Order: sequence, then structure tokens, then C-alpha cells
Amino acid sequence: MPDETLTLRILPNETWVPVQVKTTARDALLKSGIVLHDYCGGEGRCGKCRIQFLEGAPEPTATEREFLTPEELSDGYRLACQARLKQDTVIFVPDEHRRPLTSVYMHDVKDGLLQPEPEVRKVHMRLSPATLEHQLADFDLLREALKTPTLQPEHEFLKKLPHVLRSSGYDATVILFGEDCLDIEAGDTTHPAGLGAWGASIDLGTTTIAGALYHLDTGCLVARTGRLNPQTVHGADVVSRILYASLKSSNLEEIRQMVVDCINDILSELCKLAGIEQESILHVTLAGNTTMEHLFLGIPTDGLPVAPYVPVFKDGLLIPAADAGLKAHPCARIYVFPAIGGFVGGDTVADLLVAGLEAADKPSLMIDVGTNGEIVLGDRGKLMATSAAAGPAFEGRNIQYGMRAERGAIDRVVIEKGLTIHTIGEAPAAGICGSGLISAISALLKAGMIDGSGRFITDSVEEMAGRFSRTEDGFQFMLAGKNEGASRDIYIHQNDIRQFQLAKGAIAAATLILMKEFGIAAEQLDKIYIAGAFGNFIAPTDAIRVGLVPVNEEKRITFIGNAALAGAGEVLLRADMRRRAETLARRVEFLELAGRPDFQDAFVRAMLFG
Amino acid sequence: MPDETLTLRILPNETWVPVQVKTTARDALLKSGIVLHDYCGGEGRCGKCRIQFLEGAPEPTATEREFLTPEELSDGYRLACQARLKQDTVIFVPDEHRRPLTSVYMHDVKDGLLQPEPEVRKVHMRLSPATLEHQLADFDLLREALKTPTLQPEHEFLKKLPHVLRSSGYDATVILFGEDCLDIEAGDTTHPAGLGAWGASIDLGTTTIAGALYHLDTGCLVARTGRLNPQTVHGADVVSRILYASLKSSNLEEIRQMVVDCINDILSELCKLAGIEQESILHVTLAGNTTMEHLFLGIPTDGLPVAPYVPVFKDGLLIPAADAGLKAHPCARIYVFPAIGGFVGGDTVADLLVAGLEAADKPSLMIDVGTNGEIVLGDRGKLMATSAAAGPAFEGRNIQYGMRAERGAIDRVVIEKGLTIHTIGEAPAAGICGSGLISAISALLKAGMIDGSGRFITDSVEEMAGRFSRTEDGFQFMLAGKNEGASRDIYIHQNDIRQFQLAKGAIAAATLILMKEFGIAAEQLDKIYIAGAFGNFIAPTDAIRVGLVPVNEEKRITFIGNAALAGAGEVLLRADMRRRAETLARRVEFLELAGRPDFQDAFVRAMLFG
Repeated sequence: MPDETLTLRILPNETWVPVQVKTTARDALLKSGIVLHDYCGGEGRCGKCRIQFLEGAPEPTATEREFLTPEELSDGYRLACQARLKQDTVIFVPDEHRRPLTSVYMHDVKDGLLQPEPEVRKVHMRLSPATLEHQLADFDLLREALKTPTLQPEHEFLKKLPHVLRSSGYDATVILFGEDCLDIEAGDTTHPAGLGAWGASIDLGTTTIAGALYHLDTGCLVARTGRLNPQTVHGADVVSRILYASLKSSNLEEIRQMVVDCINDILSELCKLAGIEQESILHVTLAGNTTMEHLFLGIPTDGLPVAPYVPVFKDGLLIPAADAGLKAHPCARIYVFPAIGGFVGGDTVADLLVAGLEAADKPSLMIDVGTNGEIVLGDRGKLMATSAAAGPAFEGRNIQYGMRAERGAIDRVVIEKGLTIHTIGEAPAAGICGSGLISAISALLKAGMIDGSGRFITDSVEEMAGRFSRTEDGFQFMLAGKNEGASRDIYIHQNDIRQFQLAKGAIAAATLILMKEFGIAAEQLDKIYIAGAFGNFIAPTDAIRVGLVPVNEEKRITFIGNAALAGAGEVLLRADMRRRAETLARRVEFLELAGRPDFQDAFVRAMLFG
Repeated sequence: MPDETLTLRILPNETWVPVQVKTTARDALLKSGIVLHDYCGGEGRCGKCRIQFLEGAPEPTATEREFLTPEELSDGYRLACQARLKQDTVIFVPDEHRRPLTSVYMHDVKDGLLQPEPEVRKVHMRLSPATLEHQLADFDLLREALKTPTLQPEHEFLKKLPHVLRSSGYDATVILFGEDCLDIEAGDTTHPAGLGAWGASIDLGTTTIAGALYHLDTGCLVARTGRLNPQTVHGADVVSRILYASLKSSNLEEIRQMVVDCINDILSELCKLAGIEQESILHVTLAGNTTMEHLFLGIPTDGLPVAPYVPVFKDGLLIPAADAGLKAHPCARIYVFPAIGGFVGGDTVADLLVAGLEAADKPSLMIDVGTNGEIVLGDRGKLMATSAAAGPAFEGRNIQYGMRAERGAIDRVVIEKGLTIHTIGEAPAAGICGSGLISAISALLKAGMIDGSGRFITDSVEEMAGRFSRTEDGFQFMLAGKNEGASRDIYIHQNDIRQFQLAKGAIAAATLILMKEFGIAAEQLDKIYIAGAFGNFIAPTDAIRVGLVPVNEEKRITFIGNAALAGAGEVLLRADMRRRAETLARRVEFLELAGRPDFQDAFVRAMLFG
């Protein structure tokens, strides 16, 4: 009976939805616009998607028994990706799935939950019209009702206000951005179904552009997606883009338009996923490195690649989204994150909103692994950042069989009594993404098939020897073959390992120099947060084995996923986060590595393994 | 030797100009862009254009001996409109001609001079580029140089900044509006000759639109002009315009565009007069009644003519001038004055900036005589305003031979041993303006040719009897004949007197009700300020005789000319005036006269003379 349906009641939302029997709780919630804060994409590997069954809890699976205690299981807790619904069910979605990601990392230092208090709000009002005795201007009626005497209108708002008030019988919804009145709509348009207040966050990376859609009133993350940055055709790294943009002014405009079009595509897809109109987006937040943000805003970047490496502007910029070319509500605003320096940008500030280093009382490190790697060290309120050009290997670019972290990308490799691979969506393997590259190299190292210099040792494991083949410029190792179910033969090449060594060497060397500046040894590091848009969950053991982090203890490492995207989302959900971002950006010192001989030395050593 | 020239040195400007011998000082200063704050248009009747000759003072004329004391004459003081230059001359232009008009009325209560401190400023800077040691973003270089850490940029500004800085060798001029960076220009563009910072004030009246151009750095008023409000084709009064605008939305847009085009014409003429580009205007301030301001901004006015008579918005609005359709610098701002109520608008707030009633320690009255008359009574900090629909008679409309106060308009009439008229520019009489109408009726009353009810007594003065003639709807009296040098026969008709009676009756009745609310008798009024855009100087005796003011003593009356235009100019010249306008607008109480039986009663009585 595949068509048999049951009724799912979702709390605290009080939503009732019909669901097909045997659907997972995760998919059923997704259909109601609730995306759970997991990291593994529903693979049962991160244990983050826990929800509570108040009625109709299914039998726990083996995976659930691994991640949940017997007490939790008997209290009805299950993993949404594992639990399949069998009967009419009541699920309570815990707060961690409806608050900013921050709280996951901040509850160490901050008690209590963060409720959404977005800067953009829709407020429904039933007003009493003015009388001769209470002779208020139309706009002053709103001020009185909102108890905000300092409320300010847009010019366009005033043109619309009198008609909407009178035609609706003084029953209308205003859209506020802080104390600015952006728009007014007749009746109550605050209901989330297709209406309500929505916001999108964008992580504008050199290689990858990622976007997320939030329902602002409830704080729910509703959809996520990503694209290759189309500027990549003008070079993989920021310097190539800067050079292209500086050749003539139409080039700057061309690559600005490229990225704007791509973000508009992302917004369109997010809205389709959530079933809302693109005009419902009232707020966009964007975090990117300094070059990417400048190019997005059409601001020349000529000063960045030459000494003294200065940007035009470092603060956050809050402007109408339409001025930046984005397709959203006509009154929508975009906030572009403040930068720390020319090569430590708004994405790092967004990362820090999630990692919360400034509140840590012991030395803590945050590494954002991307085409441009950023590293921030914090110790009792002092924060220092630096950057290292890692290249796009972590994002699956410049790798022979590299691909973005999409369906079919190998994201995990195990060599232990044979070779096992895992692909995203468990689809036939089509290539290898950043996290898969790390996992593969870690597995090869563990098996002794790569030496400390990064060279393949083709005969170290007998049953693997047949997977090596020689090419014109060196050996390659087959991760998946067509005859094993892959969509094509997929190899990791000696050159891929070299690319990786350059990337991780740059990041590890920069980390060491930063620790040297603070006089801090690896043992003193309390927590290491790894952020990145390179795909999936990285196992702490792999990060340690490949030498991405300067410590040996897994428990000190926390993977925070695409923290730039999540941090940008926090500004959507909490008005105070925008001010926090501005303060953080000014507070973090920048350490310039250019021309430091100790960096070159550390770099050469950090490229090695073990 | 008509071509003989002399050299005029103007202090404190330190300008040197060649001038033809026998030119008046007024005309010579005009050519250097200095308009003196006179009220009589260079007629030698107001005594306000006094300047000081440091060298080359001509012999004083009889008029100068009348207005200036012997001490002043011996100190070199002369009236600029009287003094004709004969030799190389040094003139010192006193501060009263370079500060806001306010100071003329405020020096009773405030000591010291008001220097211009405009909200819009041009600042020239030579910057030191950033270095590796002092690695500042381009915009932070400006912040540092201006010592304004809270300086904020426009998005467009950031696109332009890096190129201008580098191409100019870091020698540039920024345009600031408060703490907002509007624009940057290479080199030093602060020099006043065609460059520098300029602002225009607009008095947007129901009948007349007047404009003035100021050089913001020096506070000099450089040019003034005016136009008939083109919306007049849709009715003389605000209610007709509101009805027209409410018929369909394209009507609102049509009459918005009409007034915007007219203001753009005025700005164009002002700039031609001053010899500057229209793009040099960085700041526009506009004061009008509530309806006119709404229509200018395209905001519907439907709520204004029906109870409870509410506007959409009462605060001041500061927006890009381009958004309001004005042609000026692309980054220019316009400030639209705050209103007190639906029928006491921003023009009254601008009047009050000039009259300074709120600082007076004795009961004082301000009357703005226009198509809509506004009256404000102030007593020890308490301020109350009301309005009365006077109709356009004061502005020369709905009068048989009425015209705006332009060249050829009769602006003064004396009947004493015959009839004497004076015209603006001493040109052949072409019609009669508002101040001429008041002067004519006053003269006719004085001569006993009009009775208390306003009726002509055609036989009271024998030598005038021939000037009366009968028309279909009553008598008319010839003020000027073609055979007397006028460009046509010009009459004042019995109906013109009726129009005037309705107008002055409405204002006088509203004044009485306001005094009744305060419990103040006419004898207690310390000062009465009369403002108006109706043409020229009104003699206090005439204002008393026609019953426009409730007092009999000339010395209590001060004519403050087009105070709405001057008040709007003050906001151009002093940043604090904008805040003062906002505070004043909120502070003044509004007294609603609609439906008050005591107003109807007072109105009927106030229409009479004597």
C-alpha cells in the first residue's frame, strides 16, 4: 500500500501535514519547510538531526542507538534521517533547529536560547483612524501603534500609505527594517505560507557561491543551494580576477554582472525550493572575501594586489538590494559584510560570528579552508587573523577528477581490508570533492601508500597495487572504476596530492606563524574550529592525519561547516548580529605574511606529511 | 566718458572688480555675486542695504541722510542702492548681508553673529597614501583626514573613490552632507567661481513659487527669482488641486510633474543669474504648505480636505534631489520642511525660523499673508498656529488687473493732492500686485473714497470723481491711464475690494480667535511680523489702516518679506537649523477653526474697515 498516508502534527509550529507511510521524518519536515541543522546531508553520520516523537515513535535503528542514549530513546528522541513514519505521529522540533547555528557553538559560553529578533519584520496592525479630537497624520498613526516615535518612512512608502490604509479599512501589514518603514500591504501578510518575512544569506566564495533561505519570524532555515562562481572563467584565484577587472572598466562591470546573475539564480532556486515568490525576500546578507565583495559591488580592486594591499572600503555596507542588482522585494536591503583587511574579508567575520572566538577564555583557532584560507587565533579577547592562498583544491578544482560537493561526488574513502568509497546521495561516483580528497589522502597515508614527501608508494599494500597506473606525468590511483559501479574510472593523481600539499601547507604555515605571534604552542590550543564550503563533514582524524591542524586530539576539533553562510544567516535572524559583525571586523588585527621569511620556511616544512 | 572704469575692492571677500564710473554700489556688488538683504528691491525705501566705504565714499544723498545717522555717514556707511561709485573704491560688506536673514530679527535675543555652518560642505584634502606600515583602506584615509570616524560612504562614491584618489595624486575634494560622503572630485574644487558648494531654497506657494540661490561657504545670497505655480490651471486654491489630484492617479502624477518642471526652471534661471552650472547645486530646501509639499512629493492628499483633515506625513523629509525629479548635482539632497498640521505647513515653520517667536518673552504674532494665510501666536515659549483660506488676492490673482510682483506692477499708491503711483522697476504700469492692492485700498480709505463696508464713495473727493466709471457689475476706479504713461488703463474694481475684504477678513478673524485662545488683548502684543510673497514692502501704516493687523502702532510691526524662502535658506546655511525646524514643527500647537461659530462671527465683522 504505497499510497497509504498518515497525519503528522509538527510542534511547536502546530502544523498538520499528510505524509506517506514510510517517509523519513527528515523528508516529511522538509516538505513543511523545516530544514534541520545537520551536517551530513541525511547520511546518519553526524547525529545532529535529532527530534522528539511525542506520539508514534518508530523502533530505533542501529545508527540511532549509536548516537542516542537509552534515556533519550525512551524519551522519544530519534534521528530524523533514520526514523520512518508508520502511523499518525506528533513530532516536536527542538529549538536547536530553529535558532541560528551559532547557538550550537555558543552554548558553552552563553546560557539560554537565542530567539530570532530579525532586523526586518512584518507587523500586522488594526488601526483606529484619526478623528478631529485625535488628529494624527497617517504616518503618525503607525508610529503610535508601533510605539516607535522615531520610525522613519521611505518616500515611496508615503506615496502608497494613504491608499492602503483606507482601502484596507486600516487593517494592514507594515514591513520594517529596524526603524525604517519599507512597505505596507493591505490585510495580514505575516503568515508564513508563501508570505511572511523571508531572508537569504549568501557566501560569496572565489570558487563557490552558496545561498540559504530563512523564514525570519521563526528562524527556520528553509533551503540551501550553491553554484560555481562564474567568474572562474577569468581565473581560479582572486588575483587573476583583479587583473582582468583592471584591464578596462567594462571588464569590472562584466564580472560584476556575472556574479549578480549567479546570485539571482541562487535566490530563484531557493525560492522555488521553499515555494515562495522571489519578491518575498526582504533581506539579503552577503559575506565574501574582500575582493569578491568589491567586485560584487562594482568597486575597483586595483589597490588590492600591490603593496600596500589596501581595499577601498572595509566597513559593512547596507544598501537597497535593487541598487546591487538583486531580484527580491523592491524595498529589500542587502548587507555586505565588513572586512578585516585586504585579504581577510567579510566571510571570515561571518565565520567568527559562528565560532565565537572572542568569548573564549582559552586560546582557540578558527580555520576557514577555501581557495583563500583564513586563519584566526583568539586568546582572552585578543584576535588576530591572517590569510594564505591555498588555491581551489579544497573545492575540487584543479584536481584531475575534482568536482563540487554535489550528488555523486566521492566524499569519504576508507582503505581497510580493501577500498570503500562513499558518495554524496549514494549515487554512482562521478568525481571527488574537497572533503573526499582529504579523506582519500588520509586513507592513503594511513595505509602507508603515500610517504612523508607526498609521493605514492605503489607497492606498499599488495591488494592495492593493481589500482595504480602510470601516466605521462606520474602515477595515479584508482578510487572507483566503471566496473565497480562508478559512472567513469576515477583516479587520484600524484599531481592532485601535490596540489593538496601546497594548499594545506599554506594554511598550516600561516597557522604556525600566527601561533608564534601569540607565543602559543599547539598543546595550549583549547578548540579548533574548521569551516569550509568544500562539501561535507571532515573527520577530525583525517584533519589531523593530513596535517591541516596543529593538534593530535580529535576532541579539540569542531567542524562548523559553511560557517560564512551560517554567520551571514545570523545577521538575518538577529539585528544585534550586524553590530557585532562591525565590532568584530574592527577588533581583529591583521597579520601580513607577505615578505616574511619565517613564513616561507614554515610553508616548505608544512607541505610534508607526518 | 561713459566707458571710464574704476577698481572696486570688496572686503572681506578680497575680490577686485573693474566697474564703470557712476554704477551704484548695489549693481557693482551684484555683478560680483553679492545680493544685499534689502526688501525694497533697490528703491531706497527700506534702508536695509547699508554697506561701509573704507575708501572712495561718495557724497551722501538725501535718502541716505534720512536712513543713516551723521556718525554712520562719517564712518563711511552708505546705502548701496543710492551710492554711485566715482573713483577707486574699497567697500566692506557687513555681516548682515552674508548671514541668514534670521539674525536681523534674532539679534534682539541673541548676541553675536551666525556664521554659515552648512550641512553640505566641500572639503579639499591632500592625503598621504597608505603604506605597509599604515595600511588604511582608501575610505579610512578620508576618515582619518577629516577626523570623522563615523563618516559613511554612498555606494556610488566607493566605485569612484579609488580612481579619483590615484589619478589626482591623492589631491581631491570631497562633498559631504553631514557625515555622508556624497562625491569626490580631483583637485581643489572648493573655489567659489563657478565651483564651490551651492544651495537653493524654494518657497512652494499655492500661487507663487520663489527660489533663491546661496553660496554655502560664504553664506551669500546670490540670486532670487519666481514663477506662477503652474498648477493654478487646476484651480486657485489647494482644495481644487486636491480634488483634481484625487480624480485619477495620473492626475496626481501630472500636477506633481508640473511643479517639478517649474522648480527645475527656477533652478536653471538662478544658476544662469549666478553664472554656475546647475550641477553645482548640492542642496535644495523646500518649504510649502502641507498640500503643496505632498503634491510635490507625489503623496496623495485625499485625506486633507475632509474631516479629520489629516496629512499623510508631517515630518521633514530628506531624500536625494533626483528622487524628487530635480535637476541638480547627481548626489544632491532635498529637504522638504516639516508641517505643523494639515493646513499649517512647512512654509510656516520656515517663517518661524526667521521670526523667532519661540524665543520672544512677550506675546508676539506672525502673519504669513498668502493664498492660504497662516497666523502664529507665541507667548513665553507657547506657540499656537492656525490658518485661514484668504484666496489669491494678496498675490495679485482673481483681481481684475492683478499681476505678480514683477516689473511694471503698481506696488504703491498715494492719494494726496492728486494720485501718485509707483511701479516695480519704475516701468510703465502694467497691472497691480498684492502690495499695490493693499496700498491702493489704504489710500482710498484715507481719502474717504471707500466706506466702512468697503463700498466706493464716488463723489467724496472732487478731483478724483472723473477716475470712477461704472461697469456691468459695479464701479471701478482708474489707478493709471494709458494717457498717463501706463501700458494700458488700469482699474481697481469694486469686486477687487470685495476680494480683498474676504482675504483680510479671514486673516484678521483667525488672528482674533488665536488671541482669544491665549487670552491676550491687542495692546499686549509686543511685535507683529508680517511675511508674504506678495511683492514688495508693505508700509506698516497701510497694514494698520486696512485692518490686516490688530494694532495701531507702526513701530510694533515688522515686515519680514518672503520669510518662508529666507527660512528655507537658513537650513541651507546652518546644519542646526534643520533640527530646529523639526523641533519647532512638533512644538507648535494647531488650532482648528473648522466649525467654530465664533470664527464665523469674527470673520463677518473683520471684513469691514475701520
